[in-house]
Amino acid sequence: MASTGPLGPETHQSKGKTLMLSTRVLGEQEMRRLVAAVGLHALMDETIAALERTLAGFDSAHTELRKREGFQYQHPSPGVFEWMPVMEVGRQVVVKLVGYNPANVEGMGLPTILSSISLYDVNTGHLRALCDGTFPTALRTGAASAVASRHLARPDSQVLGLVGCGAQAVTQAHALSRLFPLKRLVVYDRRPETARSFARRVDFLGLPVEAVPLEHVEREADILCTATSVEVGAGPVLSGTQLKPHIHINAVGSDLPGKTELPLELLRRALVCPDYLPQALEEGECQQLRPGDIGPSLFELVRSSEPGRRHHGRPTVFDSTGIALEDQVVLEVLLTHAQNLGIGRLVQLESLADDPRDPYSFLRTEGVLPEAARTDYRTQVSACES
Amino acid sequence: MASTGPLGPETHQSKGKTLMLSTRVLGEQEMRRLVAAVGLHALMDETIAALERTLAGFDSAHTELRKREGFQYQHPSPGVFEWMPVMEVGRQVVVKLVGYNPANVEGMGLPTILSSISLYDVNTGHLRALCDGTFPTALRTGAASAVASRHLARPDSQVLGLVGCGAQAVTQAHALSRLFPLKRLVVYDRRPETARSFARRVDFLGLPVEAVPLEHVEREADILCTATSVEVGAGPVLSGTQLKPHIHINAVGSDLPGKTELPLELLRRALVCPDYLPQALEEGECQQLRPGDIGPSLFELVRSSEPGRRHHGRPTVFDSTGIALEDQVVLEVLLTHAQNLGIGRLVQLESLADDPRDPYSFLRTEGVLPEAARTDYRTQVSACES
Repeated sequence: MASTGPLGPETHQSKGKTLMLSTRVLGEQEMRRLVAAVGLHALMDETIAALERTLAGFDSAHTELRKREGFQYQHPSPGVFEWMPVMEVGRQVVVKLVGYNPANVEGMGLPTILSSISLYDVNTGHLRALCDGTFPTALRTGAASAVASRHLARPDSQVLGLVGCGAQAVTQAHALSRLFPLKRLVVYDRRPETARSFARRVDFLGLPVEAVPLEHVEREADILCTATSVEVGAGPVLSGTQLKPHIHINAVGSDLPGKTELPLELLRRALVCPDYLPQALEEGECQQLRPGDIGPSLFELVRSSEPGRRHHGRPTVFDSTGIALEDQVVLEVLLTHAQNLGIGRLVQLESLADDPRDPYSFLRTEGVLPEAARTDYRTQVSACES
Repeated sequence: MASTGPLGPETHQSKGKTLMLSTRVLGEQEMRRLVAAVGLHALMDETIAALERTLAGFDSAHTELRKREGFQYQHPSPGVFEWMPVMEVGRQVVVKLVGYNPANVEGMGLPTILSSISLYDVNTGHLRALCDGTFPTALRTGAASAVASRHLARPDSQVLGLVGCGAQAVTQAHALSRLFPLKRLVVYDRRPETARSFARRVDFLGLPVEAVPLEHVEREADILCTATSVEVGAGPVLSGTQLKPHIHINAVGSDLPGKTELPLELLRRALVCPDYLPQALEEGECQQLRPGDIGPSLFELVRSSEPGRRHHGRPTVFDSTGIALEDQVVLEVLLTHAQNLGIGRLVQLESLADDPRDPYSFLRTEGVLPEAARTDYRTQVSACES
């Protein structure tokens, strides 16, 4: 995407010499207006297409991708707070700051994953946009599974199985319904009420949803997505023994050291494709494998002229840990629409003024800078020393 | 600071069961109002006092501090984009995202350092506040030198020398003027115009400012601050040969691998106190030293019952690389005032709704969710494959 495009600099002169830099803020209300204008299906389709394009065109000379890093904690409840940065050299940095707190749902009525995404002009350090990350994370995680499934699953897949029926399962179903002729969803959650209520969450898809025992999901699915909050060390969440021979699995939940969803026996006989190998080896299903036992990455899959589908007869697994590049893609989709539609609050966030060498000069415009009157320094020193 | 204090959770129920989480945004305009209400001197005094308290009370069991990490680049101009995170366990994460672009000033009329600071509730992942980071960075960098100088410099220091007369020098002078009986400032910048214009930037201090040759600054200063954008590998910026025997130096500029301001000969005979040793060894003056040759950190200085001043007769150096804990301190000072004064725009940033397991439920309130009408999947598949 050219830097002169709709995401080009928003720097402009105004009021004489005063430099203005605006930050576009997209919160819940703005996101609702945006979806109303663009359409949810169209947004998902665009995100899938843009992700495929970006993965295919990825060049490490132009884009510097980092593994997720963060803080882990056990109290008051186990969780993680992480930062996920990616830089397009000479153009921008996108950083998602994301909390993963499974106790949110029952304890606070909040999503497990809450996040915000920021876009910086890397040439100046200016924050160009701040966006809700909760809705975009769900969108792009669904889109990533759709891209992987397009390369790994049977195109005529009709039954989608879901293990774990929380927020991420909704966009798995949505994204896959855009690419496959799904006829029904078979779903399982260790909380029966969460499985039962899933039909309501995906009613907009117009597909029959059956809450069934886990073994039925395993037996009936052509494509299966695991999106659970299984505790570290408590996996797997599948037996893997009764799967269809052509099964493709999107393993979405593993995103922490020690957190895995699939049985090792299944991984060993499957073609396992990580989204981003360095991260998957630390946080994904690939933790269970040696590097030599791992298949092509999602980057390699989309660039390969040989379809991944040739591997059929053998299960395929997309090891989705979630990468910053996906956040960049969905943010660009959303921001392009926001700018075209004039959606978003514009804030002058950074304190600027006529003299870039004076951090107080923004205070001079309205006489806020104090008068040149010294207070008694001895009072200050003794106040600090007491 | 207790989590029930003025920075406690801003979560509240409203409109039936809908959960609201507000994000307080403090931009340039809000910052100007805040300084007008509180006073710039009072803000600096509070930041100095709060930093001293926080350093003295620091406990790694409760606060997890990380070294700065980031992206470095050479094009279009050399610069860095970095993230600086710190977590108070069970309470909050503060992250500053900061760009360091010396070409900003001449090329764009923008400060070298542009940044924004975010405060997250670590228990939920919610973004509680977003704040300009440019003004707070200057404040806290001045405050850090003041705290160090209180422990290392002579209390009767009257002459402040400044090498490098840009934005950071302004708050060095301001902060030190709050603790020492300064009579005059002697300043040098490799750009004569930047040295000459410095008097205007600190006119609010009511102190005489003399733009003089570098050797005069070295000879006359009781306390000396280096705050330059010297290029990597191009230091030192001082000769160090004509300093007063009791000189204390705040070395503020070194913040990159290879970027240092002080001559090794001076560092070898001085007591060198880093702000945060792991970072100073990579980015500070301490890069030039072996760990065994480095003195107490700022944390140790403020906690020691023995005053650092006992080292006199020997030069002292504060190796200030800038740490996330300082950003946390200044953000808390500013946010406490903002909340008390009702300053800041409140935004509902994260998309939330009645069902935390449904990332689309915020779209249901106004009928934005699409009808249950399937588009033809085959169109989608072929669109993606073309």
